[in-house]
Amino acid sequence: NASRLINYALPPSDLESDLVIVFDAESRSVPKEKKTAVFIEDAFRVLLSELVNAGFSFKVRGHKPGSVFIFVKASDAVVSFASYRSQIKDWLFGIRTSAPVAPVSQDKLDDNFSTAERLRLVYERLTNSEKDHGLGITPGQGDWVFVKSIFALHDPKFNVAWIERWSTKWILDDDELDIIRNTFGEKIALYFAFLQYYFARLLFPTVVGLLAFFFLPPYSPTFAIISCLWGCVFIESWKRREIELAVRWGVKGCSNLVTHRAAFIGESEREDPVTGDLVWYYPPWKRVLKEFTAIPTALAAGLILIGIQAVVFVIEIFLSEIYDGPLKQYLVFLPTALLATLVPTLTAFYNIIATGMTDWENHVTERTYDTSMTQKMFVLNFLTAYMGLFLTSYVYLPFGHLIAPNMDIITATMERFIGETASAKKFTINKFRLKQQYIYFTATAQLINFFVETLLPYIQRRAFKEAKKLQEKVTGTSEEIFKDKTEEASFLTRVRTEADFPDYVVGDDYREMVVQFGYLSLFATVWPLAPLFSFINNWVELRGDAVKICLDTKRPIPSKAETIGPWLDNLTFLTWLGSLTTSSLVSMFRASATERDCSYLVSARPWVLLSAVLLSEHAYFVARYLIGLVYDALDSTVVQKHRRLQYLNRQQTLNRSLTE
Amino acid sequence: NASRLINYALPPSDLESDLVIVFDAESRSVPKEKKTAVFIEDAFRVLLSELVNAGFSFKVRGHKPGSVFIFVKASDAVVSFASYRSQIKDWLFGIRTSAPVAPVSQDKLDDNFSTAERLRLVYERLTNSEKDHGLGITPGQGDWVFVKSIFALHDPKFNVAWIERWSTKWILDDDELDIIRNTFGEKIALYFAFLQYYFARLLFPTVVGLLAFFFLPPYSPTFAIISCLWGCVFIESWKRREIELAVRWGVKGCSNLVTHRAAFIGESEREDPVTGDLVWYYPPWKRVLKEFTAIPTALAAGLILIGIQAVVFVIEIFLSEIYDGPLKQYLVFLPTALLATLVPTLTAFYNIIATGMTDWENHVTERTYDTSMTQKMFVLNFLTAYMGLFLTSYVYLPFGHLIAPNMDIITATMERFIGETASAKKFTINKFRLKQQYIYFTATAQLINFFVETLLPYIQRRAFKEAKKLQEKVTGTSEEIFKDKTEEASFLTRVRTEADFPDYVVGDDYREMVVQFGYLSLFATVWPLAPLFSFINNWVELRGDAVKICLDTKRPIPSKAETIGPWLDNLTFLTWLGSLTTSSLVSMFRASATERDCSYLVSARPWVLLSAVLLSEHAYFVARYLIGLVYDALDSTVVQKHRRLQYLNRQQTLNRSLTE
Repeated sequence: NASRLINYALPPSDLESDLVIVFDAESRSVPKEKKTAVFIEDAFRVLLSELVNAGFSFKVRGHKPGSVFIFVKASDAVVSFASYRSQIKDWLFGIRTSAPVAPVSQDKLDDNFSTAERLRLVYERLTNSEKDHGLGITPGQGDWVFVKSIFALHDPKFNVAWIERWSTKWILDDDELDIIRNTFGEKIALYFAFLQYYFARLLFPTVVGLLAFFFLPPYSPTFAIISCLWGCVFIESWKRREIELAVRWGVKGCSNLVTHRAAFIGESEREDPVTGDLVWYYPPWKRVLKEFTAIPTALAAGLILIGIQAVVFVIEIFLSEIYDGPLKQYLVFLPTALLATLVPTLTAFYNIIATGMTDWENHVTERTYDTSMTQKMFVLNFLTAYMGLFLTSYVYLPFGHLIAPNMDIITATMERFIGETASAKKFTINKFRLKQQYIYFTATAQLINFFVETLLPYIQRRAFKEAKKLQEKVTGTSEEIFKDKTEEASFLTRVRTEADFPDYVVGDDYREMVVQFGYLSLFATVWPLAPLFSFINNWVELRGDAVKICLDTKRPIPSKAETIGPWLDNLTFLTWLGSLTTSSLVSMFRASATERDCSYLVSARPWVLLSAVLLSEHAYFVARYLIGLVYDALDSTVVQKHRRLQYLNRQQTLNRSLTE
Repeated sequence: NASRLINYALPPSDLESDLVIVFDAESRSVPKEKKTAVFIEDAFRVLLSELVNAGFSFKVRGHKPGSVFIFVKASDAVVSFASYRSQIKDWLFGIRTSAPVAPVSQDKLDDNFSTAERLRLVYERLTNSEKDHGLGITPGQGDWVFVKSIFALHDPKFNVAWIERWSTKWILDDDELDIIRNTFGEKIALYFAFLQYYFARLLFPTVVGLLAFFFLPPYSPTFAIISCLWGCVFIESWKRREIELAVRWGVKGCSNLVTHRAAFIGESEREDPVTGDLVWYYPPWKRVLKEFTAIPTALAAGLILIGIQAVVFVIEIFLSEIYDGPLKQYLVFLPTALLATLVPTLTAFYNIIATGMTDWENHVTERTYDTSMTQKMFVLNFLTAYMGLFLTSYVYLPFGHLIAPNMDIITATMERFIGETASAKKFTINKFRLKQQYIYFTATAQLINFFVETLLPYIQRRAFKEAKKLQEKVTGTSEEIFKDKTEEASFLTRVRTEADFPDYVVGDDYREMVVQFGYLSLFATVWPLAPLFSFINNWVELRGDAVKICLDTKRPIPSKAETIGPWLDNLTFLTWLGSLTTSSLVSMFRASATERDCSYLVSARPWVLLSAVLLSEHAYFVARYLIGLVYDALDSTVVQKHRRLQYLNRQQTLNRSLTE
């Protein structure tokens, strides 16, 4: 893997920078009549003078026609001052346990000052609003329409070492996570911590699943119960782990720190109830009311998606198990093709609506905005991921036999529409359909997904490069419009490549893992080997995500995070739903799966089924409550240490005020 | 009411004291052979010298044969020092927002220093362990077997004013609660705050209930849903109210303050993970395991109680609706008599076991001990209170018709056992039984209970006094063995009376209210006037509890509290269970209650019933989640003010450390 990190272009020392600003005169968000040379030059000059005034040094280099890079570097004094101010804020909001210490030297930073901290401070200095002590350079917004993006450059040396180390290590310990934290910030580190923790905890259901596969009958209640309990314990223990990491990284309570979103529009100016500063205010009850409108919207989108899935499902059943007419070999791909086009279209459309609604909700902070958006999208992710399995479990298998007696009508209808040539097979329910589908989702699809996510972009890029080279050869023209200095050339090529990378969106990776967790907690009873495949997948996923960050995305801008936030709620939701699905699947299919000559497929009567579900759900609630009790009773030593520090610092403060 | 407060005996100035220690040489917990005059005198001397060394002044007066009162008064200097130390502790544990300020004068307390604070500090100084800066005088334990009790004297002037004020006021505002807090401490004040809040919030279901009674059909789903939602909103809003009160009274976070129980036995000495002091340690996992043994115990007690209730229930049905033989007029009281003897016996027995188990769990703090004990007892309280209604709803009414076809056998069996004279009526189900029972519990029983709780002790006391006077007249002897000085006589009589009062147990009053809340949330659909009766009852209850504290119990020793703790969980549990019972009652009995000639009593089929319950329960979860969301979104201004204070103080500290 490491050999793929070929772009070993280090910056010539005078281009060393913290961040790169892309100034794009061709910006599409500016009306054409405004794009006069004078106007653009003015904007450029304002930007540069802002930078100079704020104590940044910079170099400008060409990017592509109409666009330049501004390599921005903050002096140590600027960073050191920003760091002190950030520490003060942390202390004021109770995130730091110890009072901030003024920097010893204002001109030189500590040697162990982390890259992530430096990048975060510089980025915030550039993009925060004036109120939050920044320059307010918000790409694409307000006065900064020509600023296309502000991004950080990868550190190729670090990346190579990172990938090399992780490819050879089996287990990633806390030191590794600390390294990620010091380079990419707490938010990214928390994702890797979560993934590593989840991966390690998967070992248990993997082993139990293997045992169940070989020694227990299918749809075994024992495996179902162990699997459910594991889910509860996993979530509860992750909550603790999360707090411990927040303490370790000194970000406990950082969710209370409010940085105003640039897009937030207050109704009136008011005193902040905590800090007493004048801030823009928007009545929370209005936002709550707006948030409630998301419920009907999500319901509508959900219904449409369910409709699509149901129609496709019917077509699929029809084609694979009834239809036997002409073009069958091509028609069987129709359902997949329909899903592959309709679902992403709907998702994209819903995304636009959801974004619009979340914008309209007018959130004060990025954090609440992200949470609101995540939860809106999760409704659709959930339906997309599991609807097929739900339809098979609760519609096709229990009610499929109702089709058989109506075969005559179906055949007749078919003949009328498709003509005499269509012929109908005798319809039989495919009782293995649920398992086949589930194996596809948990084994095959994960492999495909991994390929799409990691290898495909790489291949695309290679192919694109080759194609470009070929084109240049054929046409004889070269896109190199800037004459780079020879010592800068390879470096600038790298920067141009990185500038075209997409941002790394950590939420997408969380979604993938949470959806996977859902497959396990909802349907593991169908095929006990699923945890094994997820376990293997996640080992690769951990490394794959690292490679993805290094090769396929911009370097993430560090930011603080103390919790995986809304994803925790989604995980809990999935374990709860698992208590319903698992119990119903077991009580419906156990008899027909174990007894050899079972004439019926679904064995339980409605009220038995309902009772089983009721019982299982309440057993789940009790179990979760008890597990919570145990975790409450057993104090975490890391958290205790944190409280100890708080106590000691308070004592120190007290002693100082007593001796005064 | 106020005229009943006759004991207007103020102490002669030299007996003015903070607390009264009862030194009882006849103590039953001391083996007889040890009760030598020398031994007792030694113990008395040790106690007095401890008091003197700690800066207390005292006077000794006679109590009754073999027992004396020690009137203890702390100097202002002692209180002032203790107060400063308590403030420091509060600051170290983050309860105070502002750094503690050393007292201006060490010899004289502030004029607005509250009585409650003074009493609490003096009591803690006497009873806390040495580690917690006390003298460790724990009544009846260790070296202090002769110390029978330490109690505070009522302030008759305050009490008279209190009762007079509350008898004439309709609404108790926060100022009234502050007065309670300043006199009896936060724990008692929080109870009155809860009761007042609950009373005020009951107005809504009272009005809705009245409307439902006159305009809606019986078992109306509308009323059931409104009633359920009200419960959720009430609990959520009380959580906020509780926090606001804690902020107002400066006790937010006081649950983190650990005072070791005297009875706690550590296994080993260890550093406290927070303060770093050496403390006794008991592994929490052992306690958790012990706590889990409470589950089978409670189950067993529950089963026995259910058994008793079921047997009594059967006897009652038999006697009231089947039996028509001799002695019927006396036998109908048999069930009541059985319940009245068996249930308290079982409760008392279970109480002993529960106390033993909770002692065995070896809790570090009174708070966790109380919680554990409360929850153990609540299982039984719950079953005692509601089992009768449950049996009627889910056994008698749905399955009663199964008895009719078997009447021959029952009659035959009766005749064999009771003889020819017994005759059986034709059995018909009493379809009003549930309503009759419910009206008894929510209207009649509350009245009886109020009488038993408030008036009975008063009458008993009066009767006892008269009897004593009469006895003295008849026998000519008087119990006055101490020749009180004339100016002290009436005061000492009052002290002797108060010394015999029981302690005020705030948990009993919480239990009463929570059980009442349960009647409403579980069964209000049976009779929509129930909230009205509870509303009226609670207006009286508020005043009645005040009178009870003044006249029938010792003055409560003030202590801090920021939450009603386990009762909140119990309230939540009852609303949840209410979502199950209400939906099932509505779907079972609505048809037979509304249609005039309905041949069946229970109309719903099992799977319809199960579906209704499932649906209602999940609607409840969603509603609770959404209500929680709304409350989270709307920040409390009081809590904001608290955060503001925290922020300002941190800023101040910062500024000070910057200017150093």
